[in-house]
Amino acid sequence: MSGNSLGSRLVLTSFGESHGKCIGAVLDGCPAGLALDENDIQPMLNLRKPGQYDISTQRQEEDLASIISGVFRGYTTGAPITMIIWNKDQRSKDYDNLITKIRPGHSDYPALVKYKQFNDFRGGGRFSGRLTATHVLGGSIARKLIKITLGIETNSYTVQIGKIKIKNEPTKNSIESIYSNEVRCPDQESIHDMIDAIKSAKKSGDSVGGIIESVTVNTPVGLGSPIFNSLESDLSRALYSIPSVKGVEFGSGFASSAKFGSKNNDEFTIKNNKIITTTNNAGGILGGLSIGMPIVIRIAFKPTSSISKMQNTVDVETNQNTTLNIKGRHDPCVVPRAPPVVDSLVSLTLADHALQDGFIKPVI
Amino acid sequence: MSGNSLGSRLVLTSFGESHGKCIGAVLDGCPAGLALDENDIQPMLNLRKPGQYDISTQRQEEDLASIISGVFRGYTTGAPITMIIWNKDQRSKDYDNLITKIRPGHSDYPALVKYKQFNDFRGGGRFSGRLTATHVLGGSIARKLIKITLGIETNSYTVQIGKIKIKNEPTKNSIESIYSNEVRCPDQESIHDMIDAIKSAKKSGDSVGGIIESVTVNTPVGLGSPIFNSLESDLSRALYSIPSVKGVEFGSGFASSAKFGSKNNDEFTIKNNKIITTTNNAGGILGGLSIGMPIVIRIAFKPTSSISKMQNTVDVETNQNTTLNIKGRHDPCVVPRAPPVVDSLVSLTLADHALQDGFIKPVI
Amino acid sequence: MSGNSLGSRLVLTSFGESHGKCIGAVLDGCPAGLALDENDIQPMLNLRKPGQYDISTQRQEEDLASIISGVFRGYTTGAPITMIIWNKDQRSKDYDNLITKIRPGHSDYPALVKYKQFNDFRGGGRFSGRLTATHVLGGSIARKLIKITLGIETNSYTVQIGKIKIKNEPTKNSIESIYSNEVRCPDQESIHDMIDAIKSAKKSGDSVGGIIESVTVNTPVGLGSPIFNSLESDLSRALYSIPSVKGVEFGSGFASSAKFGSKNNDEFTIKNNKIITTTNNAGGILGGLSIGMPIVIRIAFKPTSSISKMQNTVDVETNQNTTLNIKGRHDPCVVPRAPPVVDSLVSLTLADHALQDGFIKPVI
Amino acid sequence: MSGNSLGSRLVLTSFGESHGKCIGAVLDGCPAGLALDENDIQPMLNLRKPGQYDISTQRQEEDLASIISGVFRGYTTGAPITMIIWNKDQRSKDYDNLITKIRPGHSDYPALVKYKQFNDFRGGGRFSGRLTATHVLGGSIARKLIKITLGIETNSYTVQIGKIKIKNEPTKNSIESIYSNEVRCPDQESIHDMIDAIKSAKKSGDSVGGIIESVTVNTPVGLGSPIFNSLESDLSRALYSIPSVKGVEFGSGFASSAKFGSKNNDEFTIKNNKIITTTNNAGGILGGLSIGMPIVIRIAFKPTSSISKMQNTVDVETNQNTTLNIKGRHDPCVVPRAPPVVDSLVSLTLADHALQDGFIKPVI
Repeated sequence: MSGNSLGSRLVLTSFGESHGKCIGAVLDGCPAGLALDENDIQPMLNLRKPGQYDISTQRQEEDLASIISGVFRGYTTGAPITMIIWNKDQRSKDYDNLITKIRPGHSDYPALVKYKQFNDFRGGGRFSGRLTATHVLGGSIARKLIKITLGIETNSYTVQIGKIKIKNEPTKNSIESIYSNEVRCPDQESIHDMIDAIKSAKKSGDSVGGIIESVTVNTPVGLGSPIFNSLESDLSRALYSIPSVKGVEFGSGFASSAKFGSKNNDEFTIKNNKIITTTNNAGGILGGLSIGMPIVIRIAFKPTSSISKMQNTVDVETNQNTTLNIKGRHDPCVVPRAPPVVDSLVSLTLADHALQDGFIKPVI
Repeated sequence: MSGNSLGSRLVLTSFGESHGKCIGAVLDGCPAGLALDENDIQPMLNLRKPGQYDISTQRQEEDLASIISGVFRGYTTGAPITMIIWNKDQRSKDYDNLITKIRPGHSDYPALVKYKQFNDFRGGGRFSGRLTATHVLGGSIARKLIKITLGIETNSYTVQIGKIKIKNEPTKNSIESIYSNEVRCPDQESIHDMIDAIKSAKKSGDSVGGIIESVTVNTPVGLGSPIFNSLESDLSRALYSIPSVKGVEFGSGFASSAKFGSKNNDEFTIKNNKIITTTNNAGGILGGLSIGMPIVIRIAFKPTSSISKMQNTVDVETNQNTTLNIKGRHDPCVVPRAPPVVDSLVSLTLADHALQDGFIKPVI
Repeated sequence: MSGNSLGSRLVLTSFGESHGKCIGAVLDGCPAGLALDENDIQPMLNLRKPGQYDISTQRQEEDLASIISGVFRGYTTGAPITMIIWNKDQRSKDYDNLITKIRPGHSDYPALVKYKQFNDFRGGGRFSGRLTATHVLGGSIARKLIKITLGIETNSYTVQIGKIKIKNEPTKNSIESIYSNEVRCPDQESIHDMIDAIKSAKKSGDSVGGIIESVTVNTPVGLGSPIFNSLESDLSRALYSIPSVKGVEFGSGFASSAKFGSKNNDEFTIKNNKIITTTNNAGGILGGLSIGMPIVIRIAFKPTSSISKMQNTVDVETNQNTTLNIKGRHDPCVVPRAPPVVDSLVSLTLADHALQDGFIKPVI
Repeated sequence: MSGNSLGSRLVLTSFGESHGKCIGAVLDGCPAGLALDENDIQPMLNLRKPGQYDISTQRQEEDLASIISGVFRGYTTGAPITMIIWNKDQRSKDYDNLITKIRPGHSDYPALVKYKQFNDFRGGGRFSGRLTATHVLGGSIARKLIKITLGIETNSYTVQIGKIKIKNEPTKNSIESIYSNEVRCPDQESIHDMIDAIKSAKKSGDSVGGIIESVTVNTPVGLGSPIFNSLESDLSRALYSIPSVKGVEFGSGFASSAKFGSKNNDEFTIKNNKIITTTNNAGGILGGLSIGMPIVIRIAFKPTSSISKMQNTVDVETNQNTTLNIKGRHDPCVVPRAPPVVDSLVSLTLADHALQDGFIKPVI
C-alpha cells in the first residue's frame, strides 16, 4: 500500500484501520523542546469525534489519544512522537453483508481488485474517514508548533452544506465561535438552514456534501518553493488525503478563470511599514511562496457515500447486477467534522516548510 | 530552493531559468527498452511553444530538445534521461526596469524576501511559466510509456476562456481535433468567442484566464493508494506546479458539494463483462484508487499576471508606493498553451504509480 | 531528530525509547497476502533478547511483540504493519547519576549539545542498542517475505570476539547450529575461547567487541543499482544504524586492497547451466548489483561502551574534569545478540530492492 | 535504474554515461548567496582527471565543467545547479569485442541480466568509474559551502597501495602536500614504493588496490542523528557509490573489534575551555552524531577489474566458457584518483546534514 507518510522534514506516518485494534500516527522531525502532553491533542480530536450531535454518526468512540513515545518530562525530545487511539465501538457485524456487494462511492471495488481478498474491508479499513483522526494526532502538534514559534494560526469553517451557502463573510469573531454550533459555521444566519439540510437528507436516507474554507494568518513571507513543492502543491496533496475531498482551490480559485488580470492581480501597497496587497485573490500565495497575506483555501467535500437509500450495484461474487441497502451508522454529512482535519493538514504542511527553510529551529 | 523533483519511483527533476543558458530535465526511473528519440518529445513541446499565434507571446523560442543521456541505440537504458533546451531569444533587457517595482500577481516580492538579491529575476527565473517546458520534456516520455505498455491515454483541452464556456460536451473526435484551433478547444461553437476574448483582453492591455479539462482513458483499476498518495493527492500536487493554477477538481468536484449522495454516487453495473459505473461523478477515482473509468480533472488558471495596464505597487528600493507599467512580450492568456503541460503532469503521475505497483516492469 | 525511517519502497519507521513506555515500528509497503502473526516475529526477537545468558545484560525484558495494525484474518493487507513492545524492566534509577558526567563511548555529549536538556537520556533513550529490537520487528517480516517469494535466506554469525577469531570456515550445517551456543559462533573450536573472552572482560569490569559475518544465499541476479543505491550503499547504510558498528566490508573487503586484480577478480564459469563465479571476492555484488553468488558482509562491532572500570570524563554541569564509574546492567559484549539484528537489516534492504524492481509483486 | 540521487535536503543527481555524449549533475538545495563559478569546480575535477601521469589511464579527457543553471551574477540563486562535462575522447571501438564476453570484476553480467540488451555497456556506461566525476561536480560546491559557512574541511589521501602501507602518521603539512606526488600519499617515505607497486602491476598486465583515509576537521558537535541517518550510515552510503569500494570503517574500525572497551573508549577532557576526547577511536562520531573531533574514515578500494592478463570467463552469446583479454586504456590503480571523489562525497553528506539541522541557512 505504502503512501502512508506525509511531509519531508516533518513526517507524519499514519497507521491503523477503522475496525482494527487501533489507529495511530508517528510524527517524526518535530523539534525538541515543545511542551506537549495529551491535552494538546485531545481537544482537537474531540472536535472531530463522531457521535457528538444527532446530525453525526452514532458510532461512539471516545477517541482517547495516548502519547507513547517522543515526550520526556513534558517536552518533545526530537525523537519520533507516537500517538495511539484504541478502537472501542467497532461493531464490525454491521459490515458483514457488504463484503460482496460493492458500495457505490466507496473504495470497495478498486480495493478488492488491488488488494484482493486481503483488503481489510471492515468499515472501510484504511480507506475510512476515521483515519483522518490520525491526521489530527499529528496536526494538533504541528498547529501548536507553528503557533508558538511563528504565531501562525489556521482556522477552518463551513461555508456551504448542500445547497446552503453562507450569506455573510466570516469575521475573526465569527470564526472563533464556530464550535458553538453543530455545523461549524461562522454565519449565524445560515446555521439553521444547514442543520435542516443535513437532517432532511438523513431523514430520506440520503446525504449531503459541502465546502470548508480555511484561513491561515501570520504566515511569514517566503514559505514554500516554486515548481513541485509550491505551497499549493503541498497543501493540496495533503488535503486530498481526506477521503471525501474532490476539489481544492486557493484564493479566488475557479472564479479567477473568468476574471481579467487587471481585476485579479492583487496590487501591493505599504501599510504600517509593511508590504501588503490590497486584495487577496491570490489566497496568500504567489509563485508557490507565501506572501504574508492570509492563506485562503476552499475544499469541496462530496456527499457521504454511505446512504441508506436503495442503490444499484454489482455483486462481485456472483458477478451479477444487484441492489444494495447500506445499514450501519454513518454521517449524513461529514463536513461539520472536517474543520479540525483541515486545520491539521494545513498546519502539518506549513510546519514542514517552516522547518525545511529554517524558520523553525531543531530545538525550540 | 529544493523542491525541484516530482515522483517517487519515476522522478522528474527540473532545472534551468527562463532567461538563463538553458532549461532542462532529468527523468530518473524510466524502464529500459522504450524506443525513444527527440521525435517523441519535440511534437509535444511544439504544442506548448510560445509565439505560435498572435494570441500568444511573441517571444520566439525554437524550444529544440536534445536528449543527452539515458538513450543508447534508440532505446532507453534504465539510466537517467537528461534533456536540454538551450534558450535563444532571451532579451533580458525587457526586464531591467522591473527589478525594484514588484509586479502584482508575480513571485517578485516573496522571491526577493526569500532569496534576497540572489534571486534570478530575469523573466521570472525559476518561477517562469517557461519552466513548464521541462514538465513536457519528462511528460512526453511518460505519456508514451503508459500508452504503449498499458494503453493509457491522457488528453487535455480548453473548456473555458475568461467568461466563455464550451456549449457542447467534448467527444472523442472533437478532443482529437483541438490542435487545429488556436485555443485548443473541442467545441467548434466556442472557439471564435474564446479567441475574441483573448484578443480583446490583449487589445486593452489586459489578460484572461480559463479552465482546462483533462480526461484519461484506459487506466487499469487500482492505481494509487489511500491516504497520502491517493491519485487525487499526487495528481493535484503535480498540477499545482504549473505557475498559474489556482484550482483543481476531480469529477463533479465543487459541484458535488451541492448534490445529494444518492445523485452523486456512481452506481456500478456490468457491461461487456466488465464492472463499470453508469455515471462518473467520481472522476474515475474512489478511495484514492483508479476504478477504470475515465479520470476527469478540471484545472483553473488565473489570468496572466503580466499586463500592460498601469498598476499600483511598491518600489522595494525606495520602500514607497508607485505605479508600474509592464513591458515585454507576454501571453494575454496562457490557457491555450497548457494542454500539453497538463497531459505531461498527469502522465508522469500515472506512470509513477504504475511503476510503483508493478503495472509496468523495469524493462519493457 | 528525524532519520527514523529506512527504505524507499518498503519503509521501516522505528519509534520509542529504551526506558520510555515502549519501543515499536511501522513497516509500510509490505505486500498484501503474506501470512503473518506474532509467531513470525517473536522467535527472532527472542534470539536478540537481553538476559539470556550470564554473558549478557541482566535486564529482564520479555520483549513481547504485538501486531496492532496491518494484518487481517491472518494475512497482511498491504496497509502499514505496526508492532509494539511495551517496556517492562526499566529501572531508570540506575541512570540517575549519569546525567551530568558524560559517558565515554556513548552519545551523551553530542546528544546533550544537539537536543539540550530535552534529550531522553534514560538508558540511552533513542541511542540505546535496545532500539535494534525495532529493526528485528520489521526485519523478521522482511526475512519471511523474501524467503517465501524468492527463496532468499540471510544468516549471520559471530566470527570474532575480542582477539578470538574462528579457526574453521563456517558451513551450511555449522551456521544452522549457531543458536545452540551463547556466542552464536559456527566454529565449535572457538566457542569456548570466545565465551572465556567475554567472561574475563566482564570480570575485570571491561568489555569486548567482535565481528559478525552475514551470508545471504539465493539472491536473484540484478538486485540493486549503480551509483547511489548500490546494494553496498544501501546495505551499509542499514547496518551502520546499529549503534556499535564501526566497520562494514563486502567480500574480501579491506583485504582486497592488498591483492592483485588477477587474484581478486572472480572468474566466471558455467556450472549446471548457470553462470557463476569460481571465487567470491566480490561478496556477491558487482557494479552495485547482485550477481547470484552469496552476498557476504562483515560487520565490525566496537567493545561495549558501558564498562564499570573507572574512567576519566567531564562533568557538563560543573564543566570540570572528573571520573566516572558506570553502574547498571550492561552487556560485556553485544556481538552475540547481533545476528538477528544483522539478518533483519540485510533482509529489509534486499526486500526493499526486490519490491522496487518488481521481483516481488504488491500482492503475493 | 533509478537510485541516481544522493541526499535529502541537499540532493545530488548524477547523469550521463562513460562513452555517451556527456556526464553531469544537478545539485538541488544549495543555499542562495554562495559565490560560484567554474573555477570552484575545475581544480578539484583536474585532480581526479584521467591521463595525468603514466600510472593512470591514457584516456585524454579535459573534463571541462560548465555550470548551465542555478548561478546568476556570480552567486548561487537557490535554484538547482546543473553542471555538465561533454565527453571527448571516447574511442568506444575499444569496447566492441567486450559485448558478449563478460568481464570478471565488472558489472557486465548483472547489468546484462537486469537491463537486457538495452544496457549501455560502452566503457561501463553508468557503471564506469568515470561517473565519479559527477560526484566531484556536486562535491566541490558542497566542500566550498561547508568551508566558508562552518570552517569544515575534508582531506583525503592514500595510506596504502597494494601491500605498501604508509610508515609515518600523516600531519597537517604532509596532507597538504599530497597533490605534489602521483599517488596522493602524505608519507614521503612510502611514495616511491607505492609508485613502484603500480608500475610493476601495470607492466605485468595486472592491477592493484589500496586504501584512502579521509579526515574532516572543524565539524560542529551534533551533526547527524541516531538510527537510520547516523553520520556513519549516510557517509558509508555515499562512499559505497564509488564503484571500486569494498570496505568502509570509522575511527579504529575493524581494529576496535579486538580491543577492550577500556582501551577503545575515548575519555573526555577539557582543553582550552572545550570538551574534547584524548583519543579518537570513535573517528569523531558517537551515537551517529559528530562530537567535534576529526571525522576519520578509511575506505578500501579493490584492485582495478580491467586487467590485460588473460582471464577465464563466459561468452553469454554462445553460453560457453571462454577466455578474455581486455584491451583499452585502464588505470592499473584507481586509488590515486580517488581523494577528490572521497572529499566530495564526505562534503556532500556533511553539507546535507548541516542544512537539515539548520547549521547552514537557506541564504548565506
